[in-house]
Order: sequence, then C-alpha cells, then structure tokens
Amino acid sequence: MRLLHPENIEDIALGAAVLGTGGGGDPYIGKLMGIQAIREFGPVELVSLDEIDDDDLIVPTAMMGAPTVIVEKLPKGDEIIKSFHALESYLGQKITATMSAEAGGLNSVTPLTVAARLRIPLVDCDGMGRAFPELQMVTATLYGVSSTPFAIGDEKGNSAILNTINNRWTETFSRSITIDMGCTALIACYATTGKELKEWGVPNTMTLVEDIGRTIREARSSKINVVGAVREAVGGFQVFKGKIVDVIRRTEKGFARGEATMEGVDEYDSQTLKLNFQNENLVAIVDDEIMVSVPDLITVLDTETGEPITTETLRYGFRVTVLGIPCNEKWRSPEGLELVGPRYFGYDIDWVPVEERYG
Amino acid sequence: MRLLHPENIEDIALGAAVLGTGGGGDPYIGKLMGIQAIREFGPVELVSLDEIDDDDLIVPTAMMGAPTVIVEKLPKGDEIIKSFHALESYLGQKITATMSAEAGGLNSVTPLTVAARLRIPLVDCDGMGRAFPELQMVTATLYGVSSTPFAIGDEKGNSAILNTINNRWTETFSRSITIDMGCTALIACYATTGKELKEWGVPNTMTLVEDIGRTIREARSSKINVVGAVREAVGGFQVFKGKIVDVIRRTEKGFARGEATMEGVDEYDSQTLKLNFQNENLVAIVDDEIMVSVPDLITVLDTETGEPITTETLRYGFRVTVLGIPCNEKWRSPEGLELVGPRYFGYDIDWVPVEERYG
Repeated sequence: MRLLHPENIEDIALGAAVLGTGGGGDPYIGKLMGIQAIREFGPVELVSLDEIDDDDLIVPTAMMGAPTVIVEKLPKGDEIIKSFHALESYLGQKITATMSAEAGGLNSVTPLTVAARLRIPLVDCDGMGRAFPELQMVTATLYGVSSTPFAIGDEKGNSAILNTINNRWTETFSRSITIDMGCTALIACYATTGKELKEWGVPNTMTLVEDIGRTIREARSSKINVVGAVREAVGGFQVFKGKIVDVIRRTEKGFARGEATMEGVDEYDSQTLKLNFQNENLVAIVDDEIMVSVPDLITVLDTETGEPITTETLRYGFRVTVLGIPCNEKWRSPEGLELVGPRYFGYDIDWVPVEERYG
Repeated sequence: MRLLHPENIEDIALGAAVLGTGGGGDPYIGKLMGIQAIREFGPVELVSLDEIDDDDLIVPTAMMGAPTVIVEKLPKGDEIIKSFHALESYLGQKITATMSAEAGGLNSVTPLTVAARLRIPLVDCDGMGRAFPELQMVTATLYGVSSTPFAIGDEKGNSAILNTINNRWTETFSRSITIDMGCTALIACYATTGKELKEWGVPNTMTLVEDIGRTIREARSSKINVVGAVREAVGGFQVFKGKIVDVIRRTEKGFARGEATMEGVDEYDSQTLKLNFQNENLVAIVDDEIMVSVPDLITVLDTETGEPITTETLRYGFRVTVLGIPCNEKWRSPEGLELVGPRYFGYDIDWVPVEERYG
C-alpha cells in the first residue's frame, strides 16, 4: 500500500494518456479532477492485487461517452458517487474498493476521485492495460465476469440499473442511455471479488502509468529526447514521424470517430500514415497497408514535447511521432482477438503483433 | 368484483381498439394472448376503483414499442412477468394488483395476462381513457406520480430499472432501450397506492371497452348499422366517410409514424381527409384544416363491419368511417393540453373540443 498525493496525479494523468491510445479523455481535465478530489478528501490508498482479500468486493468506476463531449461537459463529481451507491444498494453488499476499467486519460483518474471521496482503496490494476472504446472490451469479459448489475447516472439526477445476458448487450443499452444523457455518463459495473480480480485484472497499471508520466516529466527537465524515453518506458516501437495534414472527425452513435492523415518527415519522407479512431486509435495505415492494429496500442506523441495527443485534440499542423506498443498478453489469445481484434472493428485482416513488424 | 372469462376477452379486445385510436397494437393478437392466459391460469378478478384499499400497491403493465413490429414479434408471455417481479423486488414491497396504462389494443389485454398468471386482481381503470404514443402521457403525470422505478425487459432476458427526474426522461431512456431491444419491450411502472390511483385513474375503462366490443358484436349479429352503434356507445361524432387512397408509413425512432389520405364519399364527396399518426392517430385534417386533434380521440372504422382499423393495418382501398370522440375531462385542463395537446406533437394550433365542431 502507498498513498497517492496531488504530485502523483500529475504523472498518472500524463502517463495514462500514453496508454489511452488517444482515448479516455483529456489528461489535463483528469489531472484537475484528481488533484481537486485529493485536496478536498485526503490522499488515496493504492493497494496492489496481492494486498486485496479474496472476498473483497471491487467495483470499477468510469466515465462513458465521447471524449469530444467530455472535454466540454465536465462531471460535477457526485454523479459517479450516486452511480456507485446505486449499485451498492442494488447489490445489498458493501463495496470495499474501486479500480480503473481502463488505463486512459480521465478514466485512470475517475476511480481515484471515487476512492478519495468515499475513503476506500484504489486497486493498482485495470481491465485493459490500455483504453478501448466499448464496454465489453475488458479482460473481465474473457474470464466470464458479468458487467451487470450495471449502474449508470448523469449530472441531472437520472440513473439506471441494467441486467443483461452478456456484456455486449450492456454496451448496446448503456451506449443509448449515454447518448440520451448527453453523450457523457458515469458508470459503475463489473462488480468482482478479490479472488476473481486476481485472475482477470491487468496488474500494476496505476504504477505503470505513473512511471510513464514521471519519465516524460524527467526527460523534459533534463532536455533529453522525450519521445525516445517514452518509447523505452513502455517497450514500444516508432512507427512514424510526420506532420498532421488532415483530420476528419464526427460524433456518431455516441463515439468520437474519424481519421487523421500524416505526411512523413526524415526517414518517413514521402510516406503517408492514416490513423483511424473510434474514441481510441484503432489502426495505423502506412501507404495503404495496416501496419499496426488493435489490440496493440497506437499512441500519438508531440514530437517536440512528448505530450500524448488524444483523438479529440488532433489538429492540422501538429508535428507528431506515432508509437506502436505491444498489448497485454491476455488480448493475444483467440478469445481476446475476437473481442478486440481488427475484425471486430470491421478491418478484414489478421492481427500481426507490432513487435513482428517493428521489433 | 367480477370475473373475466375468455368470452369477455373477445369484447374487451375489440372495444379496446376503438379507444386505442389506431394504436396499442392489433386487437386480434391481444385477444389470443388474453384468452390463452385465462384458459391456462383461470379467470381474472376485475375490481373497481372503489373496491381497492388506499394502501394497496398497484403497478400498471404494458408493451412498449412500434405496433408495426409488435404484430410480427409476439411476446412469449414471461417477459412481462419478469419485469413485474424485477420491479417488485426493487420496491421491496408486494404488488397487490395490476392495471392498464392505456386503453388500447394489446395494452388493454397485456395486464390481463399478468393478472391471470400471477393470480392478482386487475383494476377496472386506465391512465389515459384512450391510447397515447409516449410514456409520460398518462393522467398519473398530471397528478405528480412518478413513472419510476421503471422496469423494462425483453424476450432475450435483458432488463433494466430506471430512476429519472421526470416522466419525460423516462420516455427518452425507455424508448432508446426499447429500440435496442428490437422495437418491442415489456414494462412495469407508475407504481401507485390505491389512494393515489383513486385520484388519477380513469375509472371503469375495462367495463367501457367491453361494452363497446359487445355493442359491435351485437350490432353485427342483428345486422343494424355497426358504425352508428359504436358512435352512440362512445358518445362520438362522425367526422368523415371515404376510401383510403394513400398510406405513407415509416418506423422511426421506435414509433410507427405516417399519414393516410382518404377521399370522401356520400356527403363528403370531393373532400379529402389526411390522418397523421404516431402509433396513435394524432390529427384529422379535412381539406387542409385540422378538424380533430389530440387529446380528442380519432378512430377509423371499417364502414361495412365497424371493425376498428389500427394504424399499422391501414391499407389502400379500405372503405372507412372516421369518428371523433371527446377525451376524458382530465386532459382538458391547461396541464393536460400541455402534456398531450396538439402543440406537443408539433401542430401550432389551439385545441378545439371535437363536440364544438361536430356536436
């Protein structure tokens, strides 16, 4: 166990945006929310998977919606507490801890604000080892853990509890409700025992994102190559370096979807990279060939500052470096690839591990 | 108290289609469902509003969705029981009786199947005195009764409990969920005490629809003018007589919307009536002027047989008579007209009572 203080949050929010692969919302907003919660309610206990009891009841908490909307419509802070309590009362059992469903931007920090406000521990793990756009895309699904009872609430005071026959149906219903709620909502789901979580949780995610954040901060202050330092910290590969020349973006069915086009520089001169995203970056297409795809991570960094760039902030003219990062082992099984591989997202290709192409 | 037997159901389903103003689903299917339930589980106790206790807990049950879909995707029967039980367990209180939310087609019979299966009484009343397309359009809303906790379920086994800040929000969320469930769903909502129901319930609806159904049946067998007999039984007015020459229909946002055009015959020769509907008939436009509008009832009858024609069965060539029927007093207040008057549905006119135009 260790305590998370405001100074930890800066690094966590920054690092989370690297694993967020463009999604999960703006890390700056996440940072402000996290620091605010800790200032108000005190530091948060971060416990490792080894430290939780088998019969603990852990409930991940998150924001759901389109990042493009989330940056303009901030949560008040108590909606997520309401969703959490709604689930607790429905379960009729005390929830002992919370955790991140995904390692990405706001959603690395949302559960931290819950932990601070309710003075419960935050488990040092997540359900993806990255961010994914849809709700069923967690390792919990691979291990047969149900997303329901699923609590969802908005800032107006509306809420719902879903019970579904599988996690894909939860995605369908909760996405519609999220759209009705104004494209952002607060959720609590995948209630799980400590015993189960030790199986399906991706361990040490909070510590990893904090390390990545610290690496960026330290590389910046010692004026060494930030992008190179990030690449090393995450065990990733440089896929492209260039300038953004076009961004097409639309908020569609509750998602921020679109495509960014980059023209290469240096050794990538005269090459073109197209990046398709649905909240998160899905595939990187170099000169018409998909070179990196989900479930591997595709992260866009500002070439100069190493700042991770989320899909809603991609802009014409940015000088960027694209990294490919191997995803967690759990996603590399046939079941994992069925759930989050390229074919699920409509790309008719076999997944090729990023390290085979660039390693 | 009296018992409802299969022979009562024939009349109830037929009469309900008259007050259903085109909506509420096909009465034939409603009839089959009701008779089947009574054959299997025994006759249903119909109790009047006077006979219920002030502290009884009554929960209306209904099908939600587009009638065009309902006629092709029949409920299995146990979905509605599941929604009912989900609500009961959420409320933590025994529900003592059920009732119709609306007097229309299937939804006059849906609660009857619930009453039969669970051996609980059916209260002789409804929440509209007719059928309306949206969920907040019940007299309960006028009396400040909340639609939530609101239970919704489908035939696959998915369900949800909603809690909202007002009944319009319940409509929004439950409509989206209904669309996701395949445009039909089973709901239980507006849990109410006997004391409250005596205030907001439209009394004796089941008896009224049964009377209307019997009138049609008896007029047919004694070969007297069926349409005239119906008109008298409901206290309505003849608005038009003609032939359907065009029907435009679309299933949109979970509703069956459209417009039917009729060319006049006899005294209506050379006149044209356009009928706009959203599940239910909303306005009757004679030669470009809205002559009857919600909340008054607009019912289309087969001129020959007196059979009420639902919006999903309107067809080119049908010889029809259109009746206008005064709505319940409760809808005629400023609050009632705000909730279900022509302006809510996008018609920029003041409501004129049907009896003022045709009385």
